[in-house]
Amino acid sequence: RYGESESEDLIGIVTGLAWTEVGGDILHIESVTVPGKGHIKHTGKLGDVMQESVAAALSYVKSRAGQFGIKSALFEKKDIHVHVPEGATPKDGPSAGVAMATSIVSAMTGIPIRRDVAMTGEITLRGRVLPIGGLKEKLLAALRAGIKTVFIPKENEKDLVDVPEVVKSNLSIIPVSSADEVIGQALIRPYESLEWDDDAESVKVTDTSSQEAPLTH
Amino acid sequence: RYGESESEDLIGIVTGLAWTEVGGDILHIESVTVPGKGHIKHTGKLGDVMQESVAAALSYVKSRAGQFGIKSALFEKKDIHVHVPEGATPKDGPSAGVAMATSIVSAMTGIPIRRDVAMTGEITLRGRVLPIGGLKEKLLAALRAGIKTVFIPKENEKDLVDVPEVVKSNLSIIPVSSADEVIGQALIRPYESLEWDDDAESVKVTDTSSQEAPLTH
Amino acid sequence: RYGESESEDLIGIVTGLAWTEVGGDILHIESVTVPGKGHIKHTGKLGDVMQESVAAALSYVKSRAGQFGIKSALFEKKDIHVHVPEGATPKDGPSAGVAMATSIVSAMTGIPIRRDVAMTGEITLRGRVLPIGGLKEKLLAALRAGIKTVFIPKENEKDLVDVPEVVKSNLSIIPVSSADEVIGQALIRPYESLEWDDDAESVKVTDTSSQEAPLTH
Amino acid sequence: RYGESESEDLIGIVTGLAWTEVGGDILHIESVTVPGKGHIKHTGKLGDVMQESVAAALSYVKSRAGQFGIKSALFEKKDIHVHVPEGATPKDGPSAGVAMATSIVSAMTGIPIRRDVAMTGEITLRGRVLPIGGLKEKLLAALRAGIKTVFIPKENEKDLVDVPEVVKSNLSIIPVSSADEVIGQALIRPYESLEWDDDAESVKVTDTSSQEAPLTH
Amino acid sequence: RYGESESEDLIGIVTGLAWTEVGGDILHIESVTVPGKGHIKHTGKLGDVMQESVAAALSYVKSRAGQFGIKSALFEKKDIHVHVPEGATPKDGPSAGVAMATSIVSAMTGIPIRRDVAMTGEITLRGRVLPIGGLKEKLLAALRAGIKTVFIPKENEKDLVDVPEVVKSNLSIIPVSSADEVIGQALIRPYESLEWDDDAESVKVTDTSSQEAPLTH
Amino acid sequence: RYGESESEDLIGIVTGLAWTEVGGDILHIESVTVPGKGHIKHTGKLGDVMQESVAAALSYVKSRAGQFGIKSALFEKKDIHVHVPEGATPKDGPSAGVAMATSIVSAMTGIPIRRDVAMTGEITLRGRVLPIGGLKEKLLAALRAGIKTVFIPKENEKDLVDVPEVVKSNLSIIPVSSADEVIGQALIRPYESLEWDDDAESVKVTDTSSQEAPLTH
Ligand SMILES: [Ca+2]
Ligand SMILES: [Ca+2]
Ligand SMILES: [Ca+2]
Ligand SMILES: [Ca+2]
Ligand SMILES: [Ca+2]
Ligand SMILES: [Ca+2]
Ligand SMILES: [Ca+2]
Ligand SMILES: [Ca+2]
Ligand SMILES: [Ca+2]
Ligand SMILES: [Ca+2]
Ligand SMILES: [Ca+2]
Ligand SMILES: [Ca+2]
Repeated sequence: RYGESESEDLIGIVTGLAWTEVGGDILHIESVTVPGKGHIKHTGKLGDVMQESVAAALSYVKSRAGQFGIKSALFEKKDIHVHVPEGATPKDGPSAGVAMATSIVSAMTGIPIRRDVAMTGEITLRGRVLPIGGLKEKLLAALRAGIKTVFIPKENEKDLVDVPEVVKSNLSIIPVSSADEVIGQALIRPYESLEWDDDAESVKVTDTSSQEAPLTH
Repeated sequence: RYGESESEDLIGIVTGLAWTEVGGDILHIESVTVPGKGHIKHTGKLGDVMQESVAAALSYVKSRAGQFGIKSALFEKKDIHVHVPEGATPKDGPSAGVAMATSIVSAMTGIPIRRDVAMTGEITLRGRVLPIGGLKEKLLAALRAGIKTVFIPKENEKDLVDVPEVVKSNLSIIPVSSADEVIGQALIRPYESLEWDDDAESVKVTDTSSQEAPLTH
Repeated sequence: RYGESESEDLIGIVTGLAWTEVGGDILHIESVTVPGKGHIKHTGKLGDVMQESVAAALSYVKSRAGQFGIKSALFEKKDIHVHVPEGATPKDGPSAGVAMATSIVSAMTGIPIRRDVAMTGEITLRGRVLPIGGLKEKLLAALRAGIKTVFIPKENEKDLVDVPEVVKSNLSIIPVSSADEVIGQALIRPYESLEWDDDAESVKVTDTSSQEAPLTH
Repeated sequence: RYGESESEDLIGIVTGLAWTEVGGDILHIESVTVPGKGHIKHTGKLGDVMQESVAAALSYVKSRAGQFGIKSALFEKKDIHVHVPEGATPKDGPSAGVAMATSIVSAMTGIPIRRDVAMTGEITLRGRVLPIGGLKEKLLAALRAGIKTVFIPKENEKDLVDVPEVVKSNLSIIPVSSADEVIGQALIRPYESLEWDDDAESVKVTDTSSQEAPLTH
Repeated sequence: RYGESESEDLIGIVTGLAWTEVGGDILHIESVTVPGKGHIKHTGKLGDVMQESVAAALSYVKSRAGQFGIKSALFEKKDIHVHVPEGATPKDGPSAGVAMATSIVSAMTGIPIRRDVAMTGEITLRGRVLPIGGLKEKLLAALRAGIKTVFIPKENEKDLVDVPEVVKSNLSIIPVSSADEVIGQALIRPYESLEWDDDAESVKVTDTSSQEAPLTH
Repeated sequence: RYGESESEDLIGIVTGLAWTEVGGDILHIESVTVPGKGHIKHTGKLGDVMQESVAAALSYVKSRAGQFGIKSALFEKKDIHVHVPEGATPKDGPSAGVAMATSIVSAMTGIPIRRDVAMTGEITLRGRVLPIGGLKEKLLAALRAGIKTVFIPKENEKDLVDVPEVVKSNLSIIPVSSADEVIGQALIRPYESLEWDDDAESVKVTDTSSQEAPLTH
C-alpha cells in the first residue's frame, strides 16, 4: 500500500516524514532526470517553503557535485523533476530539505536509496541540518510504515525524551548535523568523489567508502 | 455523440474517468505533437493538480523514453499539446495521470490507443499507480459510454465490493500497480523498446510483444 | 457597418457566432502573420476559455499542416496574431474554436475565406467539432448580418427543431463533425496538400479539389 | 503647454483623443525606436484594452511593412517603445488604435506626423477603422487644443448631427474606413512602398504620393 | 547624514525631489552599470508609475545615445540597475523621470553629476519635461538639504508665486522644457556627441561644450 | 545550536542581525556559487524589500568586481544562490544589505568570513551604508550569540547612548559608512584587487592588505 515504505531500493525515491494537524505521515519524494538543460521542476502541490527547500537542496548538491561523484556538466544536459505524491494533498514546510537533497543525489548518481530509511531535517546551502517540529509524530509514522532507520537533526536529539520507549527501541534513530552524513548512509553503496587533476585535465575517482561507510544494522 | 467512446482507434486520444458532484463521467484526453522544442502545453481549463499531473506523466514518459521506443532526440524537436475537451468545463484532480501518460506515449510513438478501454489512476514519476476516489461512479460512467475494459489502481481493488454486479459482469476491470502495465495493454500494438549499443553507437529495436501482450477479450 | 458580414472575401478574416445574455451576435475573427518565430498572440479581451481555444486551433492546424498545404518551416518564421474586435467587449467560450482554425489556415495559406459563411463549434486537437449552446440565437444573428451559409456541429442538428422556419429557409445550414469539412468549404479555393517524397527530399503538391470541393449555392 | 497640440511636426508623436467622465481630452502618443530585437514596450498606465490596442496596431504595421516602406528586417533590429504621457493618469479603451499605428509608422519610417491633426478610431489587424464613443466631446477637445484636422471612423459620421456647428465649421473632419487613409494623410510626406523583385532579390522603391497624397488645407 | 545632498560629485547619483503627505523630501537616485545584456533592473520599492518612469527615461537615453556620446553597442554589453534608497520606503509617481534620465546618462558616460543640483519633472520619450505637483514642498526640501540649484518644469513656472521669497532667493531655480537642458547642465563636464561618418564607418567626436555649457554660479 | 555564531570561519556564510516584534535575533546569510549563467536565486521566505536588498548587494559587488579581485567573466559562468535559513520564517527589511554583499564577495572570492563578526546596515548601489532600526535589540542578540565584533551604520552611532553598558563593553562596535570597510575587515584575509593592463590585456594583482587590514582584536 502507498503509505508504507517502498518494497525495493529505488533510484531517486526517498522517504520523508511529514507532520500535519492529524498526526505524522510519511512522504515519498521522487526525483527523476530527463534530458534537458539544467532546469528543475517540482510538482505535488508544494507550498512556497517546500518549493524553496527543493531549490536549496539542489544548490547544495550542485555546489559540491564533485564530492558526490557527479560531473558538473551532467547538470547542463539534464532536467530534474522532484515530485511528491499524492498530488491532490497540499504539502509545505522546510523539513523535507535533507530528503530532497538525498533524492537528487540518488537520481543524479544512479545509486539507489535504502528503502527502509526515512529522514527529516531542514537543509542549508552548506548542508547543515536544522531542527524540525513534530519529532514524536514523525517517528510514530515511520514505525507504522515499517521504516527501520530514521535520520533526525542533531538539535532535535533533546526532544527524544518525549518519544515513547517502544518507538525508540524499534527504530534506529540517528542524529545528524550535516546532510553529507545522511546521504553517505542512505545510499545503498558509497558514491565515488571526483578529483580534478589540473595537469591532465582529467578526472580521477576516489572511493569514499572508507570515510562514509553505508550503515548496516 | 461526444460523451461516448471514440468510434475508431486513434493516436493520442484516451478515455479517462472523472468523478464530479453529479456523478461519474468520461473524459477524453488528447495529445498531439507539433514541430517544436520540447515544450508542453495543456488546455481544457485544467486545475493546478491536473496540470501537475500532465507534468508528472511527461517526466515519467521522458525518463523511460527508450523503453517505449521513443528516441530522446524526438522530444527536442517536438512540442506536445495535451488538451481535455470540453473547454468550458473546469477539470481537476490527479486521477487522470495514467491516462495522460498513455496519451503522450501514443502521440510520441504513433501507436493508436484501443478505443474501448478507459483508465483511472494517479501516476508517480516512477510510474506507480496510486488509488483514486469515486470508483463506483467512474465504472458506471464507463459502462454507459460503451467502454469494455477499465484499468483501475491495484489499491482500489478492495472498493469493488461496493460496485453493482451488473457493472462488474459487463466490464473487464483490470487492477494495475504500474503505468507500464496499462500502456502495454491499451495501445493497439506493442511498442518496440530501444536498446543502446555502446560499441556501434546505434540503436537496436527489441520487440516487446512477448512481455507486454496487448490485451484481447 | 461593423456587425454585418464583410463586403469582400478576405484572407484570415472569418465570421464566428457569439451567444450572449442579450441574444446572438456575429464575431469577426482576424488572423495575420508577421515575421517571427512561431509565437502566437491573441487580443480582443478574450477570456481564458477562448484563449485556450486559440491554442487548440493552432495545434490542430500545426499537427496537420501538410494536409492544408502549409510547410511546417513556415511556422518557425512567422508569428500569428489572432484578434477579435471590438477590443473593449469581453469575449469567452469555446464555440469559436472551428472559426479560429479556419482563420489561421487562411492566414497561413493566403487563401481568402468566403465572406458569406459563418460557423460555430468547439474544436478538439484532432479537429472534431463539439456541440455549442445558443444555436437559435446564433442563427438569427447570422441571418441579420446577411450570412448565407452556417456550419454547425453535427451534435447540434437535433436543436434545429427549435429554430424558426424563416431562418432555416433563408440560411444554408451545414452540420459538420470535423473542422476539415468546414475549412475545405469555407476557403474560396481548395488548399493543396503537401506530400513528402522520401527519396527526393522534395515536396509534391496534390490538388485536393476533388475531395474537398468548395461549396457552391 | 502640455494639453495643446505639438508646436512642430515630430517623428513618432501623434495626437489621439480621449473621452473621460469629465469630458474630452487630447492624448499625446509617442513612439521611439531603440536598438533591440523586435520587442514592444508600452508605458503610461495603459489598461488592458489599450495595451491590446498597441499590439493590434503593431501587427497591422508589421503585416504590411512593405507598403509603408519599412524593411521587415528593421523590426528585428529595433525595439519600439510606445508611451502615453502623463504617466500617473490611467488610460484605457480601444479608440487610440489608429493613432498607435500612425505613431509606429512614423517612428519606423522617420517621417514626421503633421502636428495639427488628431485622430480617433479602433483598429483591426487588417486596418479597418471601427467606431468609437464620445465623438462630440473629443472634437471639442481637439478644437480647444488648436487641432485643425480630425480623422474619425466612417461609422461615426452619423453622430456628427449632435456636434455643435461651431466645431464643425472650425475643424476639418475626415471620416475614414481604413487606417491606410489616415496614415497616408497624417504623415508630412508620402511613404515609399517597397516592391520585391524576385529575380534580382533587391527591393525597388515606389513613390506612393500619387495614391495617398498627403492632405493640404 | 542621508537626507542631505551628497558630499562629493558622483557618477550615476542624482538628487530628485519627492512630495509626500508629510511634505517634501529629497530622493537619491542611483544608477550603476554592470556587465550584462542591456537589461534594466530597478529596486527601492518603486510603484508602477515610477517603474514606467525608469523605462521611459531609458528609452529616451537609448534613442539619442549618440547625442550623449554613448555608443549604442555599449547598451548591449551592460545591464543598468536603477535603485532608489531607502529600500523600505514605497515611492511612486512620474516626477522623477528627468532625474532617472540624468542618472542613466551619468552612469553610461562616466561623467559625474554636480552634487549641489536637484531636479523634478516627468519625462516623455522625446525628452519633454512635463509639470509636477508639490513644487513648494519640493523646493523647501531642496533648500533644507543644502541644494543650490533646482531644475523645474517650465510649465510649473507659474506656481513659483506661491513659493516663499526666502526659498527663491536662496535657490537657483531653472525652468526647463527639455531633459537635454537639464542633463547638459547637471553633469560636471560636457558630454561629447558622436557623429557617424558614413564613408569611414567610424565615429567622430564633437565637443558639445559650446552648446550645452555646464552651469556655473 | 543554530542561533549561535558559526563554529568555524566559512565561505559565503555571514551573520546578520534582525529585529522583530519579539526582539533581536541573528540571521545567518548563506551564499554559494554553482555553475551557471550569472543568475541570482534567493530563498528563505524573503519579503520584497529583502529581495531587492539581494539585488542591490549583487549590483554593488558586480560594479566593483575588480576591486574585490573577482574577474567579471566569473559572473557569467556562475549562478549565485543566497539563502537565509530558517526557511519557514518570513524575513524582510533592507538592513541585511551589507551582510548580503559580504556574503556574495566571500562566495565569489573563496575567502572565508570571520565567524565572530556580525553586521547590520542597508546598502546602496555605491556601497554607502544607510541607518537601520532596532540597534539595541540587534546588539543584544549579537552578544547572546557569542559575537565579538559588530559593524553598524555610522548614522546609527548616535543611538549607542541607549545601549546598555554591558553590551558596549563586551562587543567591539565599529561604525562604518561604506560597505568596503566592512568587507575589508570581515573577510579572514585581504582580497586582491585586479588591475587592468591595457597594453598587455592581462590582469595584475594588487595586494590590498595595506589599505584594508583585516581587523584584529
Ligand atoms: Ca498518506
Ligand atoms: Ca515541516
Ligand atoms: Ca461530458
Ligand atoms: Ca480526481
Ligand atoms: Ca457587435
Ligand atoms: Ca460560447
Ligand atoms: Ca491632460
Ligand atoms: Ca475609448
Ligand atoms: Ca528621507
Ligand atoms: Ca510625484
Ligand atoms: Ca532563530
Ligand atoms: Ca530590517
